Parts: sequence; C-alpha cells; structure tokens
Amino acid sequence: MKEINGGVCAPKGFKATGIHCGVRKNKSKKDLSLIVSDVMCHAASTYTLNKVKGAPIYVTKEHLQNNEAIAILCNSGNANTCNEDGVEIANAMCHLCARELNIDASDIIIASTGVIGQPLPLEPFETHMNELVQSLNENGSQDACAGIMTTDTVQKEYAVEFELDDKLCHIGAIAKGSGMIHPNMATMLAFVTTDVAISKDMLKKVIKEVVDDTFNMVSVDGDTSTNDMLSVMANGLAGNKEIDQENDDYQTFKKALYYICECLSKGIAKDGEGATKLLTCKVDHAQTLKDAKIVAKSVITSSLFKAAMFGKDANWGRILCAIGYSDAHLDVDKIDVKLASKVGDILVCQNGRGYPFSEEKALKILSEDEIEILIDLHDGEYDATAWGCDLTYDYVKINGDYRT
Amino acid sequence: MKEINGGVCAPKGFKATGIHCGVRKNKSKKDLSLIVSDVMCHAASTYTLNKVKGAPIYVTKEHLQNNEAIAILCNSGNANTCNEDGVEIANAMCHLCARELNIDASDIIIASTGVIGQPLPLEPFETHMNELVQSLNENGSQDACAGIMTTDTVQKEYAVEFELDDKLCHIGAIAKGSGMIHPNMATMLAFVTTDVAISKDMLKKVIKEVVDDTFNMVSVDGDTSTNDMLSVMANGLAGNKEIDQENDDYQTFKKALYYICECLSKGIAKDGEGATKLLTCKVDHAQTLKDAKIVAKSVITSSLFKAAMFGKDANWGRILCAIGYSDAHLDVDKIDVKLASKVGDILVCQNGRGYPFSEEKALKILSEDEIEILIDLHDGEYDATAWGCDLTYDYVKINGDYRT
Repeated sequence: MKEINGGVCAPKGFKATGIHCGVRKNKSKKDLSLIVSDVMCHAASTYTLNKVKGAPIYVTKEHLQNNEAIAILCNSGNANTCNEDGVEIANAMCHLCARELNIDASDIIIASTGVIGQPLPLEPFETHMNELVQSLNENGSQDACAGIMTTDTVQKEYAVEFELDDKLCHIGAIAKGSGMIHPNMATMLAFVTTDVAISKDMLKKVIKEVVDDTFNMVSVDGDTSTNDMLSVMANGLAGNKEIDQENDDYQTFKKALYYICECLSKGIAKDGEGATKLLTCKVDHAQTLKDAKIVAKSVITSSLFKAAMFGKDANWGRILCAIGYSDAHLDVDKIDVKLASKVGDILVCQNGRGYPFSEEKALKILSEDEIEILIDLHDGEYDATAWGCDLTYDYVKINGDYRT
Repeated sequence: MKEINGGVCAPKGFKATGIHCGVRKNKSKKDLSLIVSDVMCHAASTYTLNKVKGAPIYVTKEHLQNNEAIAILCNSGNANTCNEDGVEIANAMCHLCARELNIDASDIIIASTGVIGQPLPLEPFETHMNELVQSLNENGSQDACAGIMTTDTVQKEYAVEFELDDKLCHIGAIAKGSGMIHPNMATMLAFVTTDVAISKDMLKKVIKEVVDDTFNMVSVDGDTSTNDMLSVMANGLAGNKEIDQENDDYQTFKKALYYICECLSKGIAKDGEGATKLLTCKVDHAQTLKDAKIVAKSVITSSLFKAAMFGKDANWGRILCAIGYSDAHLDVDKIDVKLASKVGDILVCQNGRGYPFSEEKALKILSEDEIEILIDLHDGEYDATAWGCDLTYDYVKINGDYRT
C-alpha cells in the first residue's frame, strides 16, 4: 500500500469540484462541493447519533436505502439544521444537481455543515448549480476539500493505492473537522471514494468496523455534532473480482480504508479548534475492547488533562483521575502511565502510584506538537487508541467571540 | 427558615478552627481545618464515584461504618491520593488529632484536597496538632472554611435556623469548589453540621435525597475528582424529638438541608475555575426525573455552550445540540428554549426550530453574571435544575500553566 496524491479523484472514474455559490458572504471562500462517479456506485454512510439531526442526514438516509449513489453534494456555511423547511431545501438541492448531471435525485448523497438554525436559501444553488457541474474535473479534489471547510486551518485529503487480484486499486478521501463559522458549530464530514468492486453488504460491514476504531475515537471538545456523516462510494472500475465475503481481499481493502480513516481522524484531531498539539492516547491490556476504548476516550476528552497538555504540564494525576471516573473495569493498582513524543518517553506512574521523573525531561517531551499518552492497564488482552487535542485560549476565543 | 451567620458553628455545640501547619509553602494560606462537636454525632457521608480515590476517602468510610463521629479534620494543599503510604498517613493524622481531643481516632472524619500523587509528610501535623486543637472556638467557621480552600476565590459558608417541635434548630456548612494549587486539581468538599436530633437511617436517607438534587447537579468542567466528599454531623443538642421516620419534621429538616446544599452548589458553580458567570439550566416537563436531569447536565457540561455564554452569544443551536446528544428520551420537535437573567427573558427556540429574536435584547440578557437557560420539553411531568459556569480564558490559564 502506497500513499499517493489526488484525494477523492485518485480512484478511477471520479471527478470533483468546489466553488463559491454565495451561502457564505465571503466570496474568497468556497462553499459548495461536488464529487461524481462515472458509473453507479455501491455506497454506505454512518451518521451522527445526535437526536437533533441536520435535514441532509434524513434525505441521505432515504437516498441510501438501496445502497447506491453516483454523487456527493455538500455546502458549507450553513448546517441546514433545526429549520422548518430543511428537508424540502435539501431535496430541492438534490433535484437541481440531478437535473444538471442528468441523473436521479435519489442517487445523490447530500450534506451541509455550518451554523444551526438559520434558514438556508435555495437561490445560491439555483444560480450556481450549472457552474458547479461544468467545473467538475479529474483534479478537483482540493477544490472539493476547500468547499467543505469551515474553520479548518489545513485541508484534510488523502489517497492510497494497493493491489487486489493483480489489479491496481485506489481509495481517496476528504474530510472537514471542527471549526467556527457564523456563529460556529463543530461538525465532522468525511467523503471517501474508491474504484474497488465490493458488495453492498461488505461495504456496510467494513465501514462500521473501520469507523468504530478511527472517527469514533476522536474527540475535540466532547460535543457530538448534529451533522456528522461519513460516506463511501465504491464504483468498481478497478476491475477486481467483487469482494462479497470476508476473504483476504476484504482484509486488504479494510487495511487501506483503515489507513485513510486513521489519517483523516488524526488530521481532524490535530486541527481541532484552537489546538496546538495532537494527543494520541494508547491503552494496552484492558479486559475488553470496550474497556480499552472507554479509558482512551475518557482521557482524551478531559478538559483538565487537555489544558495541562497545552501547558506542557506532566500532570499525570489528571490522567489517573480521568481513567478513574470512566465506566471501564480496571484495577487502579496495576496502572502504568508513560508520556512520549519523538524526543523520548518517560514513566510517570507505576502501579497506580507516582513514579519519580525528571521534570526537565518531561517538559522536553511535552514541548513537541505530537504527544502520546501510553496507558498500560495490565489487566487483559485488548488495546485501543484515541485522538484528541489540547484545550487552549484559542478554543475559548473561537467559540466565545460574540457573533458580529 | 431564616439565613443566619456562623457557618458550621451556628448549630449548638460545635467549635471550629483553621491554621497554617506547613503542607503549603505559602505561610499566609491556612491549610488545616478542624470541626468538633461537644457530644457524639450521628454522621453520614457521600463520596466520589471515581475509581481512583484519595486515601482519606477509604479511612472515612471505615470510620463511618457505625455512622458516628465527633470531628472533621481536613488539610488542603495535598490530596493524599495515589500515594503508597496514603492510608497510613491519613490514619496517623486521625491518631494525632484524637490524642489532642481525647477521643477515639475512629470518630474522626478525615479529608484532604490538593495535588494528586505527591507524598504527604506527617511532620506538619505532628508539629501543629496541639496548636490546631487549642485554637478551636465558637466563631471559628470562617477560619475552617479558609483552611480547606484551594483556588476558590470566595468563601462558601452558609447557615440557617428553623423550628422543629418548638425547638430552635440550626444547620451550618462550609464547602470548597474547584481551584488550582500546585499542580492543580479540582476537588469538591462540603462539611455540614446540625444540632437537630435525627436517626442514623434518616440522616443517610435525607443526605442521599438532597445531594442527588444539589451537588450532583453541578459541573464546572466534567472532571469528577478523586476526593469529593460531603459529610454531615448531627449532634442532637437542639433538643427536638429525634426524627426517626419521614414525618413533617423530616420534611422541614430536608427543606433546610436542601436550601444549604443549593446555596453551596450555586456558590461552587459560580466560583468554578476561571468562571465569570453562574449558569442555571432548568428543564421542565420531561418524561422522567432522570431525563430531566440528563438534559440539564448535558447542557451545563457542553464546552461549546459554556464558551458561547462567556462570549454572551445567544447560540441556541449549541443548546439543542447538547440536548440532542444526551441519552434522554425526548421529542426534538416539542422543545422550547428561553434565555433569561434579571433584566428579562427571550424565546430563542420553539418546537425545535429557531424563533426570531432581538440580538440586542439577547446581548443585554447575557451580559449579566447570572444566566438562566429555560428548557421546556413539553413531554411529561418532571423537572430538574443543574448549575455550571462559563468556559473562559482563565480556565485554560489556571489549568494550563506549567507547574513552577
């Protein structure tokens, strides 16, 4: 498996684009993106578990009942959530796009990200849908990525190639993380394309497996958004024998998809609102997978711990505290904690008790911008990893500034 | 019922004090407190649910097996948590105190608050226990309150008087909230005294009922500390007929205790680390009490919502978002949300949709330092209230500054 350029256009038969259509006032910011396959795809999505859901979530769920799609349409600048006419508007967007593409509206995956509870006018889409479709091209992934960003500071775009069946296969993806817009809302979106031939059932299965270990292990601020969605479109143009069972090809595809999703997850965590550090919490030797995940996420979500990481403070007591208030089964007296970065690692807690360490070395380790928290529960066979970021002044600034 | 002065010394037969013994380096800060009853008390406590517990928690649990106590001893500056010899030290502190008071060590409630994982030397207690006991007096509540503070900026001390059985009765209390010490840890402690005669069983029952609706509905940063504890000592000196069933006297006592605990809870929330605002979230008409509490706590705990309140931003979408990702049963399409303060209130969301409002009026309401978020679920008969505070630059500063 090799990392390559091209994002969502790296797989055969995909075009993409992103333009400014006027949802945002700032004309220099793209706000509408489109990804289209030359042929019908098997497709599947995972959605936010928030009971307050954006209107596009309902429409996409409806459209993916047959697990087929040709295109993904997404605007930024407005989440189309908590609006009286939200579903109507999302459907109208699909119809405008379908007419220009000469496809069925129900073959479109639709998404929105941005402010909640502000009406989304149809006019920008009516005026610019033709321009959007006309601008589709085979190098359009970066534009599509730009069109879904809110306050993300870096583009999150990845692609890999690998072989199945002696055929060269590809997976590409773009994602947005959390960011402020007017009036700021954290939403996660990820769109994945692939030319691998895979059955609908296997596609649904692999997405669930991979997302549970990647995107579902990220936390920027503990607030689950109303519009979170990951969608995968697989058009089969690589020509491999369709993956229809959990065979070696399935494992190869899963590994590649996992790699892409892990890259996006880390990218989203590192680019979390106001973040200066990527925090990776690895938990080893838990009694169950669930226990390992609960501990990793509890630590990565603790405001006190996140603020300590911003301050380069080896305050391991907060890590123990966050482990302790999680719902996981564990034996406090067995827990070891190490802090690590590329300059080294340091043991700070052994058997649930403080272990004497050099503050100087700890400061050096924590001054890096990628920090690992290594927790060994010495209590079983299961491991898990979670990603997050530090809590900074800028997080408060981004989310506390009065809307102007 | 009338609010009065005197704190934990307001009830008959209680003395208190607080001194500097040397756990802290800063000699101007008291770090050791003692509350003593003239006679044996019925006593009960509630404790942190964190699986990582401070050593004093284990010792106090042991001492309160018979639900009797005469004294509360508490140091600040060191939580005596995750230490190899923690329980030993906590027991030794009790023995030193018991010897000076001429009581049994097992009749002492012991607590510590401060940094986790730093050994707590016995020497300051050996040197200063006599001085501590000698300084006990009937006006010592403020000194005792000072001795348990960490970065609390205001003392939290309350007392009320009321009648039971034509006898004048009293409840007094002190508490500490969250604050930074070296290297900073949030811990909540509350000590309550009363001269009411009440059976052990009724005392345990009333504490559970009141704490569930008061202290357990407070969140400053979502991090449950390792040393949280609330203890009540009832010495019976008011001379009322002992409360041994849920009669009218029980209800009167419960009402007074609730008032005290609500005052302390609001005080802790308002004095949360870095806080500029007290946030009170009232949820009405939930299907169950549990649903009402879950919704109120979910909103009050949301970092995005807390940052918006700091920024005086009427960003109701974040309130809906936090309601939506809670585990509560609810119908999104029935939810109304109002924002209120002493200058007025404003409807911002009706039937789960945005309701047009004056940004100018919203800014005026949110510029006050006590804000109410009024959520009507229109879905049942149950209500709940939670208290919290805004998320500010100073929270990050207090918790992010490198230990020096």
